[in-house]
Amino acid sequence: MYAMQIPLPPALPAFTDVLAAAARIAPHAHVTPVLRSHSLDAIAGCELFFKCENLQRAGAFKFRGACNAVFALDDVDAAHGVVTQSSGNHGAALALACKIRGLALTVVVPEGASAVKLAAIADAGARVVRCAPTMAARNATTEALLADTGAVLIHPFDNAHVIAGQGTAVLELLREYGDLDALLAPVGGGGLLSGSALSARALRPQIAILGAEPTDAADAHASLQEGRCITDRVANTVCDGLRGHLAPRTLQLLQRHTDGILLVEDARTVEAMRLLWERLKLVIEPSGAIGLAAVLSERERFAGKRVGIVLSGGNVDLDALPWRMQA
Amino acid sequence: MYAMQIPLPPALPAFTDVLAAAARIAPHAHVTPVLRSHSLDAIAGCELFFKCENLQRAGAFKFRGACNAVFALDDVDAAHGVVTQSSGNHGAALALACKIRGLALTVVVPEGASAVKLAAIADAGARVVRCAPTMAARNATTEALLADTGAVLIHPFDNAHVIAGQGTAVLELLREYGDLDALLAPVGGGGLLSGSALSARALRPQIAILGAEPTDAADAHASLQEGRCITDRVANTVCDGLRGHLAPRTLQLLQRHTDGILLVEDARTVEAMRLLWERLKLVIEPSGAIGLAAVLSERERFAGKRVGIVLSGGNVDLDALPWRMQA
Repeated sequence: MYAMQIPLPPALPAFTDVLAAAARIAPHAHVTPVLRSHSLDAIAGCELFFKCENLQRAGAFKFRGACNAVFALDDVDAAHGVVTQSSGNHGAALALACKIRGLALTVVVPEGASAVKLAAIADAGARVVRCAPTMAARNATTEALLADTGAVLIHPFDNAHVIAGQGTAVLELLREYGDLDALLAPVGGGGLLSGSALSARALRPQIAILGAEPTDAADAHASLQEGRCITDRVANTVCDGLRGHLAPRTLQLLQRHTDGILLVEDARTVEAMRLLWERLKLVIEPSGAIGLAAVLSERERFAGKRVGIVLSGGNVDLDALPWRMQA
Repeated sequence: MYAMQIPLPPALPAFTDVLAAAARIAPHAHVTPVLRSHSLDAIAGCELFFKCENLQRAGAFKFRGACNAVFALDDVDAAHGVVTQSSGNHGAALALACKIRGLALTVVVPEGASAVKLAAIADAGARVVRCAPTMAARNATTEALLADTGAVLIHPFDNAHVIAGQGTAVLELLREYGDLDALLAPVGGGGLLSGSALSARALRPQIAILGAEPTDAADAHASLQEGRCITDRVANTVCDGLRGHLAPRTLQLLQRHTDGILLVEDARTVEAMRLLWERLKLVIEPSGAIGLAAVLSERERFAGKRVGIVLSGGNVDLDALPWRMQA
């Protein structure tokens, strides 16, 4: 319903859009390191290549898509600022991108969002508008803001520029390690996995492209099985970044380019998160650890393979670590 | 007293020994990334270049020196294995280096050492021998082991190969960013700071080379002031890696090549540690955060400068974080 208000490339972005995104965000985004660990390789029984998006600006891959979308706006479209809905990393990433370009941003945030992530949005100078924690309230609040201000919407994942931007992480990964057998990325709304799939399928056609999704937020898995967007499930997971539902755009891209979605119990994800902190010495949020958890949950599938894993972000409340809550 | 038992380059290593070390450890050690953070630059009021030795194998720079010392042994000297004293990262690093070369290692560990660091030593296959937590007990136990086994001692810092190996971190840093104005490294026994100074003085003669030391473990600062090794102070600091005292070898190198030692309150170090976790998304141990704490404690000295900081390690007990203990 917002399609008329944002300048879009063709409805489904392609690999060329990822290449354009890489050039567009290069002055602003970090090229993140790919880290390896002998001890994690030994534990997993395969060779792991960790793309460290927790080390991206604003602490998550989200800055890539947000930056690409913000800098793709022409001056006329940008004149009245930007609006988005987000309870997390997209809001903070978009706030940083808008700050860099000098655009006003309003973020619609549902009650109950993480205080740490809210603070990051406000710190970057964006206006926060609260609403009830329902999809209807979010949409109504967003539409009212768009109508009042004439701003453009930059959706967290249902936006071709955002998807193309997210694809630049795996573009970098495969340029550094071109011979991977499999690639794992978390899936919430599907922006990261869609963009990653564009890059991976183009650069390494035979690679297995897999999503990782919490067992109790398995709407993307179900959507692919049923061939339609399932959006009425209530997510129940420690992975606060993976509670979104696919949009038609991301569903189509996942149908075309991915080889499946692995479901992972939260307890396994929390174990993997702690393992990443202990062995890789990285602060990774639960959503970011689900790829390693998927590999460790299905060792036979990956035995001896070269596996790329996108560590998607590191924005976690250091006063509320999940392994303490479980103790 | 152990000098006859280990093959040493001339008593004081030189920059050429660092270059030799870099070649010797290249097949085994990681080239660690240098990370930057816009938000930490803004907080500090200068440009910061973080050399991430928490991402080194075994989680600390110590692997560089340990690996260099182990692979510098000739087969005759190595035949009866290796002994060291360590309550921390050197023990784990040496255990990994000995495992790679296939040498037996015994580590003399005082009662009261961190369980996490002990586990890392044992996990790498080294034998742990406990002793009372006094210098006399450590030395007596070590001498008895050397006499019994014919093993060679690889001291944590009073060893030219170890010092030369530690210098490879700053060698990498300055090869990547050659125009730094200042360099900060933590100082305990002085191995890292000595090696770092060899590299920095050779590659960038005008750079300010500074140590950072806990206010309540300021024996290195006092030793430089008095021109002799002060070893009778009891350290009282959260920085468990910085409780050692200088040896004559490291004292001489610091006298020749460094420009001073900054003293830092533990409370500032814990704040800096948390800031590194939050902003850089890195797991850093207290000792590793003291360089940033020093910069933030003396903002005027560093205003507008380009400052390299060695984040020395990330081996911390995730169940006992210092900001929780302070709460």
